Amino acid sequence: MKTRQNKPINLLLISATLLWCGFIGYQHHRYTADELREMYSKPASEWPTPLVDEGIAWKEIAPIPPSPYKDVDSLRPLVDLGKVLFFDPRLSSSEQISCSSCHDPQLSWSNGRTVAVGHDHQLGQRNTPSLFYTWAGESFFWDGRVASLEEQAKVPVENPLEMHQGLEDLPAKLDQIDGYHPYFEDAFGDGAITVDRIAAALAYFQRTLEGRTSDLDKFLKGDKDAMSDEALRGLHLFRTKARCMNCHSGPFLTDNKFHNLGLHYFGRKYEDLGRYQVTKDPEDVGKFKTPTLREVMRTGPWMHNGLFHSMEGIMNMYDHGMSRPKPRPEFKDDPLWPTTSEILKPLGLTQEEKHDLIAFLESMTTLIYRMPRPELPQ
Amino acid sequence: MKTRQNKPINLLLISATLLWCGFIGYQHHRYTADELREMYSKPASEWPTPLVDEGIAWKEIAPIPPSPYKDVDSLRPLVDLGKVLFFDPRLSSSEQISCSSCHDPQLSWSNGRTVAVGHDHQLGQRNTPSLFYTWAGESFFWDGRVASLEEQAKVPVENPLEMHQGLEDLPAKLDQIDGYHPYFEDAFGDGAITVDRIAAALAYFQRTLEGRTSDLDKFLKGDKDAMSDEALRGLHLFRTKARCMNCHSGPFLTDNKFHNLGLHYFGRKYEDLGRYQVTKDPEDVGKFKTPTLREVMRTGPWMHNGLFHSMEGIMNMYDHGMSRPKPRPEFKDDPLWPTTSEILKPLGLTQEEKHDLIAFLESMTTLIYRMPRPELPQ
Repeated sequence: MKTRQNKPINLLLISATLLWCGFIGYQHHRYTADELREMYSKPASEWPTPLVDEGIAWKEIAPIPPSPYKDVDSLRPLVDLGKVLFFDPRLSSSEQISCSSCHDPQLSWSNGRTVAVGHDHQLGQRNTPSLFYTWAGESFFWDGRVASLEEQAKVPVENPLEMHQGLEDLPAKLDQIDGYHPYFEDAFGDGAITVDRIAAALAYFQRTLEGRTSDLDKFLKGDKDAMSDEALRGLHLFRTKARCMNCHSGPFLTDNKFHNLGLHYFGRKYEDLGRYQVTKDPEDVGKFKTPTLREVMRTGPWMHNGLFHSMEGIMNMYDHGMSRPKPRPEFKDDPLWPTTSEILKPLGLTQEEKHDLIAFLESMTTLIYRMPRPELPQ
Repeated sequence: MKTRQNKPINLLLISATLLWCGFIGYQHHRYTADELREMYSKPASEWPTPLVDEGIAWKEIAPIPPSPYKDVDSLRPLVDLGKVLFFDPRLSSSEQISCSSCHDPQLSWSNGRTVAVGHDHQLGQRNTPSLFYTWAGESFFWDGRVASLEEQAKVPVENPLEMHQGLEDLPAKLDQIDGYHPYFEDAFGDGAITVDRIAAALAYFQRTLEGRTSDLDKFLKGDKDAMSDEALRGLHLFRTKARCMNCHSGPFLTDNKFHNLGLHYFGRKYEDLGRYQVTKDPEDVGKFKTPTLREVMRTGPWMHNGLFHSMEGIMNMYDHGMSRPKPRPEFKDDPLWPTTSEILKPLGLTQEEKHDLIAFLESMTTLIYRMPRPELPQ
């Protein structure tokens, strides 16, 4: 009988898990908040070594470097054009859906929804990424299928589930709006409207989008009191016991890589093979890009499919070692059956530690802001 | 000189304010959380008397009564039709905007925006109210201009800034969608589609919308530990020093009345005369309806114009006695010049007290939920 056969293996697994939890409990010294404040007020080179698995390239957490695209006079006309285009619903076939419909500044450049509502109220499959700090992105979309914002910008415009606008018709459509001519002239020296120019302007506008200065950045730049005790404990947990730095490191708290968290729903209704759809490499089945954690507390729901509405839920899932689905019999020998990343392990976090980790995420989340919508050219 | 003449008056005002703050500081005894838990675990009739001004009708805070419209078998077909209509963008002239565009279940039946984005991306003037507990509403819209959800439902459909759909054409439009006929038959006994039937179905669907059970309700129903110490201190402050019960009382934390908070921008660009537009009574200039505080922490930005993005900001404004704008010379003798409500006074709240009040508001805010969008009739 299957159940009986599995018993020794189950017992072994349980013992191994208990041993592991004992081990991580043992090795993680509990510092007081004062000790942590002292420790982390030193230069980052003197911080405790983070708990990062062998072979993983990581970078230390650091303040956000200045955007090379913001407040650059020569780029201003391009950015201004991009802003107008970004908020203009005439970029969609229905003339009712703009980039800002799903990426709203007031909703942290996303939309607060599991998945976006697009053309004819159709739903997409993936959660809308926020646009904070896209200037630093190394690839775009959850599967990283394009390498530049210029390439990215064209996709939602054309997507029949999103703006549903044939790109080939768009330049002529905008050309009929007289008010657009001076914008293109200022940005490009002449009034010709092309798909590439539209995409370039949208890309450059998006490269200027940033959050306010966070408590984390203030702390990293020397303001010892900018982070609460909870957030400081969270920072240390993030770097050690909670193993977050294995994927979320550097100033933007991302490795820009792709990982399998077991949320691929392989062979089921909500199946999403992620990075594999781009590379066709069986190793990439079910992998999705590590998102930046900058502004993360305002960019929920989270994960590539918007599965989680609460950060507590996410903490619980990571604490369990995330999801490790077992193949149904018909997938047992499927060469595409994806294996959840070995980086993910049970963590043995207490409720207070989960709370502290969330406080740390709060420390890199800043206040909302309103960007007035530009007047649209007529 | 004007400044000099004003000095004694200023001094007098400052002294009066200091005296007032001293007075409220004196009269508000600081109970420990344990004392408060003991006090508020008794029946509400034995709670301390709330600080409510003379002549104000108030009701004690109480658990939410069960909705008389929910899970009623005979209403089910009407509610089902209403749900389909609510999520159907074909109720707008562009066929891209549904009621759910601005009242999204995932965004707490609102949209997270200062003001909504409607037809052709036009902006309205007022913040979109959430639809939680509309079944208990006594009037609708910020100025209370209609008394029933049936009347309310027609307005956004027709509003050129919102769904921009002529009501006279709507029944014929829906009649062409075969899939709607059985819905109308089930709900009304025959397949005739009329504006009033559409409105009735939308109204009944909305009457079923509620939050989950809140910590406040659990506490009020006898679970002594359902509220944190902070929230309990907040409850007591809410009922006493912070003077909130003057307007926010009863199970839904609203008096269903209209008050002038000084946010009317009289004679300025963002002027909104509020309730006066309905009654034409000069007493009503600048008055807006007291909203329910149920689920309030998820329904921001707040106020009739979505002015506040942070609850801390709201606490600071109430603490100052809210806004009391002085008329510019040309409005000095204007009979319509509105006077901010006398209920609002400086409160002398500490930072911790503001924090506790927000914790109390958290205790009446529950977890978000997702309502799957219905399949639209074809």
